Amino acid sequence: MRESAGPPGGHETGNADILLVNGIVLTMNGNSDTYEPGGVAVRDGVVMDVGPSEHIRSRYRASRILDTSGCVVLPGLINSHTHAAMTLFRGLADDLPLLDWLERHIFPAEKKLSAEWVYWGTLLACAEMIQSGTTTFCDMYLFEHEVARAAGAAGMRALVGEVLYDFPSPAYGPVENGLRHTESLIAEWKDDPLVRIAVEPHAVYTCSPELLIKCHELAAKHDVPLIIHLSENDAEVNQVRKRYGVSPVVHLENLGMLDRRLIADHCVSLDERDMELLALRQVQVVHNPESNMKLASGIAPVPRLIDLGVNVALGTDGCASNNDLDLFGEMDSCAKLHKVATLDPTVLPAGTVVKMATRNGARALGMEGKTGEIQPGCWADIIVVDLDKPHLTPLFSCASHLVYAARGSDVRHSIIHGRLVMENRRLLTIDVAEAISRVREFARKIRV
Amino acid sequence: MRESAGPPGGHETGNADILLVNGIVLTMNGNSDTYEPGGVAVRDGVVMDVGPSEHIRSRYRASRILDTSGCVVLPGLINSHTHAAMTLFRGLADDLPLLDWLERHIFPAEKKLSAEWVYWGTLLACAEMIQSGTTTFCDMYLFEHEVARAAGAAGMRALVGEVLYDFPSPAYGPVENGLRHTESLIAEWKDDPLVRIAVEPHAVYTCSPELLIKCHELAAKHDVPLIIHLSENDAEVNQVRKRYGVSPVVHLENLGMLDRRLIADHCVSLDERDMELLALRQVQVVHNPESNMKLASGIAPVPRLIDLGVNVALGTDGCASNNDLDLFGEMDSCAKLHKVATLDPTVLPAGTVVKMATRNGARALGMEGKTGEIQPGCWADIIVVDLDKPHLTPLFSCASHLVYAARGSDVRHSIIHGRLVMENRRLLTIDVAEAISRVREFARKIRV
Repeated sequence: MRESAGPPGGHETGNADILLVNGIVLTMNGNSDTYEPGGVAVRDGVVMDVGPSEHIRSRYRASRILDTSGCVVLPGLINSHTHAAMTLFRGLADDLPLLDWLERHIFPAEKKLSAEWVYWGTLLACAEMIQSGTTTFCDMYLFEHEVARAAGAAGMRALVGEVLYDFPSPAYGPVENGLRHTESLIAEWKDDPLVRIAVEPHAVYTCSPELLIKCHELAAKHDVPLIIHLSENDAEVNQVRKRYGVSPVVHLENLGMLDRRLIADHCVSLDERDMELLALRQVQVVHNPESNMKLASGIAPVPRLIDLGVNVALGTDGCASNNDLDLFGEMDSCAKLHKVATLDPTVLPAGTVVKMATRNGARALGMEGKTGEIQPGCWADIIVVDLDKPHLTPLFSCASHLVYAARGSDVRHSIIHGRLVMENRRLLTIDVAEAISRVREFARKIRV
Repeated sequence: MRESAGPPGGHETGNADILLVNGIVLTMNGNSDTYEPGGVAVRDGVVMDVGPSEHIRSRYRASRILDTSGCVVLPGLINSHTHAAMTLFRGLADDLPLLDWLERHIFPAEKKLSAEWVYWGTLLACAEMIQSGTTTFCDMYLFEHEVARAAGAAGMRALVGEVLYDFPSPAYGPVENGLRHTESLIAEWKDDPLVRIAVEPHAVYTCSPELLIKCHELAAKHDVPLIIHLSENDAEVNQVRKRYGVSPVVHLENLGMLDRRLIADHCVSLDERDMELLALRQVQVVHNPESNMKLASGIAPVPRLIDLGVNVALGTDGCASNNDLDLFGEMDSCAKLHKVATLDPTVLPAGTVVKMATRNGARALGMEGKTGEIQPGCWADIIVVDLDKPHLTPLFSCASHLVYAARGSDVRHSIIHGRLVMENRRLLTIDVAEAISRVREFARKIRV
């Protein structure tokens, strides 16, 4: 990296905060424009301009110039479904039958949670996410005001919401409080540049139709996303069919809840009618291949959903079922899993998968045209991936390398909302040693 | 890392070259012994002793002491099937139908290969493998004398062999030359501490029964492994059934070739009879989950093979179909793929998968009790993985972290045959910049 006061003279048309020059810029915009060498000018949190490096260099001055030679510059990745604070339980229990895992390990450990632990678990998650190229995440968990606070402290973009269900929550007690709490969170974070609030009923099998309808109304009233786990595995679908006589997707359709504001996580066990409904109602689907694999939930019919025109984004799910938050690994797993599942090597090519982790994520989270691409007027959420390494040599295709060969550890710099949050892999917003030490302290408590 | 002349006084019983102290040592020996904190004493290429850190510290002196606090120390990983030089084609062509990929991209590019390019492609592969924790690899390709030379230069342990088939090879011409060449390689590398030679017929569908029998005899004569691609996908099985009336496995059984010296790569499309034969004859199976996924070959029945008592090792296959050589990613994919394939989250637990990449690999390659474990008398092939990172926090289980959360980039040091080949991620045996620049030069040639 090089700092300077910008090029002498030239044809600058403005002052920028940061210029990125000399890299391969993948804009991921509607035309998939690529500039090699390319540049980006950033000011006041947004992208002012993107284009050939020479164009950017000659037209803008900045106090900060990042030389991204040998690197690919792309929009920051979007983790469209996670439970960030579950870093606290990373590797606590693996390779177990689902009920055993939940009832004997995760639920007892969650009983020891407090708002404070959720803050530290999330801050650690933010460190890991920034270090592996994620700039925006979408979260569902308990004590979400602390998740919002941690995201803000880390300088990460986040869509968060308190999880709601029929039984009392350790965070807010009875669900009426949860709905009120959600509404107050919406008001509290309304004007925040980074954090937005969603309404988040847990799932069809844990929320009564009445609660689901209240959630839907609340989301509509404030025009915020509604987020739910949906059809994660056959057991869920069978349970819902037994109770309501229809699939979880049809159940939501019957409640009038399927619309483009709904973010449906997982969508593994779908029949053709379910998929057609998701397409017709323009529901946002978030695919979590590694968690679905590890928990043996099944393989979501992603190629078919995409064929039907559904917007499919990518998520890691929580660290208890992955066990990391690295979207590079997730892209790799996603691209490969569907090839072997369909026995068709042309399914989900690399370019499609990079789109799932960028543009599609932005669209899913209601941030279309604001992040997930590098375009004038978008928020400046940008990562720089270093290609000058043995495992990324030679270079024939950036998309191929990003999906099939790069790892989160290849991300060198990260900019979120125009702010440099990681520089040469050093986190500038988080005291990593403190976050690690706090989470270890919690781990000692729950191991007892 | 700390260097010193060892502890003052103490009860040393010998001089070592290197001591590793204060880490968590996973020996991966027959008892799965673990020492925390543990230590290892290395001398003359072999492990002298392993045990509690204090025991090692007090009993040995060494000019080199590696403080592995906060790290896990384990046997170097074994990549039991790859085509190392195919780094040259990494990302050249992806997401294509198999024949298109081979005939329009890989074969034309391979026509431009020479012995020199195989050397540089392999050296780059060695850099990537060492940097991601592999200390031993098993290779099949053209111009394998250059692979042997590159492995030697990199200080890596390798089992290599020239690929043999019915048609003329760009490397040696007619197959009789190939057999003679293999025999001369066996003689040439007989006493090498790192490199061993195998006999490597490509596959049942590319080698006549006569050639296969000659290969088997040659391997038996010199008591070296015989390596073949076997039942990689349904198309191969159908083709072999059409020609010989039996499956590829039964075809080899009928030729009298199934035995414990045979290393069978892939083994994706197997029926129950095939699996029973592989078990009965104690054939070594190498599983390559990521390549099988990316090429849409299918899912090998690994849990069933293991149940039947087959030794199953792990490989990455070549970079044209993966596209990396990172066994950490491969372990992750392996553990997750079989859970979702069987809809059973208890299948292939983390500990089993670490074994596949260490002990089982050593056994497959005919190096049982020599590498793949840290045990007195074994070759000192050891890696040190740094756990002091956000994505490896907290720590409940080392095996879980190694499989589900660590990446190759978390490997800090690597020792092969008692020699430190990577220290704090810096490669000590390879000029990485030169290898990268040579491979880029070749890439420019084949892109034209």
